[in-house]
Amino acid sequence: MSGLDATHDPARRSWVPGADGHADFPIQNLPFGIFTPPGGDAPRGGVAIGGHILDLRAGLAAGLFAGAAAEAAEAAAAETLNGFMALGAAPRRALRQRLAAILAAGSAEQGRAAACLHSAAGCALHLPARVGDYTDFYVGIHHATNVGRVFRPDNPLLPNYKYVPIGYHGRASSLRVSGTDVRRPQGQLKAPEAEAPRFAPCEKLDFELELGVWVGPGNALGEAVPVGEAAAHVAGYCLLNDWSARDIQAWEYQPLGPFLAKSFGSTLSPWVVTPEALAPFRIPQPSRPEGDPAPLPYLLDGADQREGALDLALEVLLLTPAMRERGLPAHRLARSNARHMYWTVAQMLAHHTSNGCDLNPGDLLGSGTLSAPDPAGLGSLLEMTQGGRAPVELPSGETRRFLEDGDEVILRARAAREGTVGIGFGECRACILPAR
Amino acid sequence: MSGLDATHDPARRSWVPGADGHADFPIQNLPFGIFTPPGGDAPRGGVAIGGHILDLRAGLAAGLFAGAAAEAAEAAAAETLNGFMALGAAPRRALRQRLAAILAAGSAEQGRAAACLHSAAGCALHLPARVGDYTDFYVGIHHATNVGRVFRPDNPLLPNYKYVPIGYHGRASSLRVSGTDVRRPQGQLKAPEAEAPRFAPCEKLDFELELGVWVGPGNALGEAVPVGEAAAHVAGYCLLNDWSARDIQAWEYQPLGPFLAKSFGSTLSPWVVTPEALAPFRIPQPSRPEGDPAPLPYLLDGADQREGALDLALEVLLLTPAMRERGLPAHRLARSNARHMYWTVAQMLAHHTSNGCDLNPGDLLGSGTLSAPDPAGLGSLLEMTQGGRAPVELPSGETRRFLEDGDEVILRARAAREGTVGIGFGECRACILPAR
Repeated sequence: MSGLDATHDPARRSWVPGADGHADFPIQNLPFGIFTPPGGDAPRGGVAIGGHILDLRAGLAAGLFAGAAAEAAEAAAAETLNGFMALGAAPRRALRQRLAAILAAGSAEQGRAAACLHSAAGCALHLPARVGDYTDFYVGIHHATNVGRVFRPDNPLLPNYKYVPIGYHGRASSLRVSGTDVRRPQGQLKAPEAEAPRFAPCEKLDFELELGVWVGPGNALGEAVPVGEAAAHVAGYCLLNDWSARDIQAWEYQPLGPFLAKSFGSTLSPWVVTPEALAPFRIPQPSRPEGDPAPLPYLLDGADQREGALDLALEVLLLTPAMRERGLPAHRLARSNARHMYWTVAQMLAHHTSNGCDLNPGDLLGSGTLSAPDPAGLGSLLEMTQGGRAPVELPSGETRRFLEDGDEVILRARAAREGTVGIGFGECRACILPAR
Repeated sequence: MSGLDATHDPARRSWVPGADGHADFPIQNLPFGIFTPPGGDAPRGGVAIGGHILDLRAGLAAGLFAGAAAEAAEAAAAETLNGFMALGAAPRRALRQRLAAILAAGSAEQGRAAACLHSAAGCALHLPARVGDYTDFYVGIHHATNVGRVFRPDNPLLPNYKYVPIGYHGRASSLRVSGTDVRRPQGQLKAPEAEAPRFAPCEKLDFELELGVWVGPGNALGEAVPVGEAAAHVAGYCLLNDWSARDIQAWEYQPLGPFLAKSFGSTLSPWVVTPEALAPFRIPQPSRPEGDPAPLPYLLDGADQREGALDLALEVLLLTPAMRERGLPAHRLARSNARHMYWTVAQMLAHHTSNGCDLNPGDLLGSGTLSAPDPAGLGSLLEMTQGGRAPVELPSGETRRFLEDGDEVILRARAAREGTVGIGFGECRACILPAR
């Protein structure tokens, strides 16, 4: 497995209380994000370690970094991570190595670094970057097949699907960080039997369990990124809930694709989990089923096929107002995995730039909903309830066809393999507010 | 007609040489843009007057502005017009009135203002704003019908068209200002009879004649803009060439809409023509044909119906390398008009925000291709050549099914009515470079 170094050593411990054994942020993870500390005047960059955040601005002032690590820390300490993402892998790796040393048990820097820590519970978290453009792909083949069956029963998976990493331009302005409530949209709804649509609050509000990809160094307009170089353009990963108004979508989406069914809001987890942190969890791209065409040459790279996929467990949980009131825990609706992507992230990125389209640091790519092939791994209510026909039963005795006001949806991601220390993404959660 | 004041007076003359009688930029227009003067160190805001540009930064330094006009001039003098667009109509109107006075024949400020003028020929023009999100609509009903016939012969206009101002998210990063060459994209092409697609340079490269709309003051996420207030959110207008790779589009666009067929580049005219300048050219929204449904109430406003449409002549011209070599002028391919929009700009904007989606200052809306109902008014080659079947004949003896390398496409817009001084948008032009 390539890209492993001392920062991945499962024996490494941290002096930060609670970091060792932390489900998401042990010292082997070290994701970057933008936060405001309690009483802080402005957002700045930080690193999650256990239940704490290391303030990079304070760390710079304390002289914790030098050389390439300092250059990267300067960029990552800013109000957004766009400049840090633009730097690419080498400075990011240097900073990661320095952070791993500083935060390791026995570090001589413990005293100075401890003064730069905040309890995460008291900090406000923000979107990690100003997103220039957001592109949502559709590489979850089980989702594409399931949804295709609902919208086009005769034709679930279109002929282009196994050749083209299908994607579309999403709305960047309405991306929000985890914890921001989402207002139920209004829109044109048309029942199949109705003669005309009506304008009303969405009645089929849904979530979508997606992996988000942060773009690092960009490419100039007109210059495609070859698939073999595409991985170097990834700055990190997050969770993405691509909220979807299924009734608005069904009526509006032909012929130009989803629009208002999606643009009322999308939720992102705040921490940018780096490619370095995920290196131990890379796996070969699963073989295509017998009979599927080989990817066209511009999408095919040996190294990408050998380790371009991710073994990353994903789950989605639901917490209803009634469950909250009765003290019940959030109920897991589905378990899936990022390995169910029909195309790798490098293939998505190479395809995206194959026409010359320029990507820029801080652009966001979504995977599309990542459903597993089994019924316990469906990444949207549309799939779980077969378009609303078969309600989901909850431990509270309630049922759901689609989301109701006050419902909170929580996405989680966790990578864990034997011989590694598992890491997580933190939560991507948001609550539905009633329509205005 | 509302919104008319002394700045529209057809009798007003300017002391700027060449401004009176200028086809695009007489003193009645006064559009805003971002330019770099010869030898200039940085882009800054300016106003087009005849063949000149008034440097707003220099004008501020010379003390030409005071009060609300100065506040607006400060914002408009910056490196982008985003801050100016955010201000809304009242400061913009104050600045327009002051500019009209300064530049009028007999102005006491002539001496000081003349020192702030640059010949436009020596200036570099830039995109007027940093575009956060770009949305392309599809409100040219004749185009939608014509294209629908090519892609879906049995089903040219889908049932939602007359209820929903159809649109989709476009790619903001690849927007470029007029004069920037466009590289022919590569992509997956699949002939109907071929078993599999191949990756090759686009063979069906096309233009699209569109009106662009600059968004002014935005709306908060979750807060819709009522149709009756939507016009106040428009900062101005431009021309937009939404270059389209028809072969890539045909293969990729199902089920999520156009993606790489569009994102390789879109070209904008540099000048922001204000709603104030276009006030004399507002017309009633044309009556819907007998049998068409009325717009749903959230899209219906009396004032918008009475004067929400624009009488704006549009044309598209082609200049091939052979024509250039032989000294032939660009050949007009089509004449159309913005009055062929099935939905008004206010309806587009109200629909866009109806689900709570937030628009921001400097966002761009495209109208979609604006074809006229007659064969001399088709806004794309796809329509003119019936998908490539009937080549267009050029005065050079050449023919075109789609664009060839070296072809230059020029869009123009002009508003003119009896009793007014006509105004234009300047050109939106770009030349096709061969694929890499």
